Amino acid sequence: MRIVVLAGGIGGARFLRGLKSAAPDADITVIGNTGDDIHLFGLKVCPDLDTVMYTLGGGIHEDQGWGRADESFAVKEELAAYGVGPEWFGLGDRDFATHIVRTQMIGAGYPLSAVTEALCARWQPGVRLLPMTDDRIETHVLIDDPDAPAAEGADEGRPARKAVHFQEYWVRLRASVPAHAVIPVGAEQAKPAPGVLEAIAAADVVLFPPSNPVVSVGTILAVPGVREAIADAGVPVVGLSPIVGDAPVRGMADKVLAAVGVESTAAAVARHYGSGLLDGWLVDTVDAAAVGEVEAAGIRCRAVPLMMTDVEATARMATEALKLAEEVRA
Amino acid sequence: MRIVVLAGGIGGARFLRGLKSAAPDADITVIGNTGDDIHLFGLKVCPDLDTVMYTLGGGIHEDQGWGRADESFAVKEELAAYGVGPEWFGLGDRDFATHIVRTQMIGAGYPLSAVTEALCARWQPGVRLLPMTDDRIETHVLIDDPDAPAAEGADEGRPARKAVHFQEYWVRLRASVPAHAVIPVGAEQAKPAPGVLEAIAAADVVLFPPSNPVVSVGTILAVPGVREAIADAGVPVVGLSPIVGDAPVRGMADKVLAAVGVESTAAAVARHYGSGLLDGWLVDTVDAAAVGEVEAAGIRCRAVPLMMTDVEATARMATEALKLAEEVRA
Repeated sequence: MRIVVLAGGIGGARFLRGLKSAAPDADITVIGNTGDDIHLFGLKVCPDLDTVMYTLGGGIHEDQGWGRADESFAVKEELAAYGVGPEWFGLGDRDFATHIVRTQMIGAGYPLSAVTEALCARWQPGVRLLPMTDDRIETHVLIDDPDAPAAEGADEGRPARKAVHFQEYWVRLRASVPAHAVIPVGAEQAKPAPGVLEAIAAADVVLFPPSNPVVSVGTILAVPGVREAIADAGVPVVGLSPIVGDAPVRGMADKVLAAVGVESTAAAVARHYGSGLLDGWLVDTVDAAAVGEVEAAGIRCRAVPLMMTDVEATARMATEALKLAEEVRA
Repeated sequence: MRIVVLAGGIGGARFLRGLKSAAPDADITVIGNTGDDIHLFGLKVCPDLDTVMYTLGGGIHEDQGWGRADESFAVKEELAAYGVGPEWFGLGDRDFATHIVRTQMIGAGYPLSAVTEALCARWQPGVRLLPMTDDRIETHVLIDDPDAPAAEGADEGRPARKAVHFQEYWVRLRASVPAHAVIPVGAEQAKPAPGVLEAIAAADVVLFPPSNPVVSVGTILAVPGVREAIADAGVPVVGLSPIVGDAPVRGMADKVLAAVGVESTAAAVARHYGSGLLDGWLVDTVDAAAVGEVEAAGIRCRAVPLMMTDVEATARMATEALKLAEEVRA
């Protein structure tokens, strides 16, 4: 069975570990979000790709969910001693090596997809990990700018706004200020990375893990051609709600859902994806009451436990998703 | 007193520490060798500049003479795990931070001289450290190439030769094969870095520490205009022999001296610099017999202890060099 998964960072990576356990013989292609990639210290950092790679390759910091196990921070301390920041982004020494290799290869002319394949040659994640694009897409978040002069004319009195890199919003500001919009800068000009459309066209099922529907899955869908390829693939597309009981299972998905005018409920996220894209949707048992609303929107829905407390629980979620896909297909 | 010092790595750095101790009120400008700079892992590494900066700034690994104290090697281990080399060049985590900052600044458009000044803002070496040039000069060493087909024609039977980067010759091969030539690639097109010629013109004395006369001081002198500026400055130019008792005090200077046809003796090195450049020369007391030979070549010479066993001994050497400079001037 060929499974295509659209993955963000921690949520996507943990789901994939469960999926591999539930479907050990499946041929899994992961289309990874690169919208939160960032250049730090002159190095190209791909947080979501690395989280998937480290998690599936056994190198992840388990408690933290991102970064490397047994990590040290000598480089970061030294950079701070030089007065070189940002200090709010935690890069460890082991992690730095990944970014150094990646940056060196990109400098030598390799596209990100080839670099990712080279890095995975070490990590052996057991899936085919593709960046959504080899082009540069950078997710920016529009926030109030208290330092700028107030807007004039029709917008008079409204605070001026500024766009910040997603990582600045997410990591530095911890999503503590309202997000007025989420913009995948560069998306319009981007092309899917080699293999992305082919994997979708050849898939037996497409899964949306409980990743952030706006800045993870949403950004992947913003790459021209990807949404259409999934809709046109003619295979079951099944997602798992990242919202349980009106709150994100982890992270701060509610903050960016508000920016796109979507309520933080399991049903609202399903409607946001829409029946033109999504065939099946899993909500948590605490949201069983939402099943009717989702099905009314033309999306088959089941309520099952959706807390990824360990690999076994996550594998059961993956099994339920694949089961729902077969129901949809039948 | 304004002193200009042409410095390589360990020998130059240690001498400078003694000089600062001997002449605490002097205004010291160091013109650092950049011929052994190398790009590793996509990062610009300047071994000699860093050795001077770390040594005078208190961050050097004292026993080793290069690299940082309290160093760790997580990044290097990880790079090796990715199969990315070279493994023969020992970059520690703290050291990596320096190269990351440097590479980021150069990528942002700053010349090496500005980068070096920025790095020194942290280290406060107590001297003005200038790279000899902002242009790229790379010291290559011509060695036999046992893997290549033998030469034909006039050179028949002579093994084919290849040029390797100085660091490959010095660090990887440990100077264990004959060096047929030492070539400062790019020197002809290079210009002295901003401030270099001005510092020489304003100097009261120019010192050559016991650095490698071929690949350190020699490379600095190969930057067009530097040798002429020193010769024309009209101030005493005094050197200290890196050869004591027919052998290098440290390192493998004898290997590259052979490549330029110079014997490994204190007198031969003085004659190699020549009386057109050099006014005074210090040899070690064990080489007292060479004083006559050096003076016969038109260079004033004294025999004093030249082992840099500690800062005090090195300060005495510096004092002797400055004393000889005053003798020359008088």
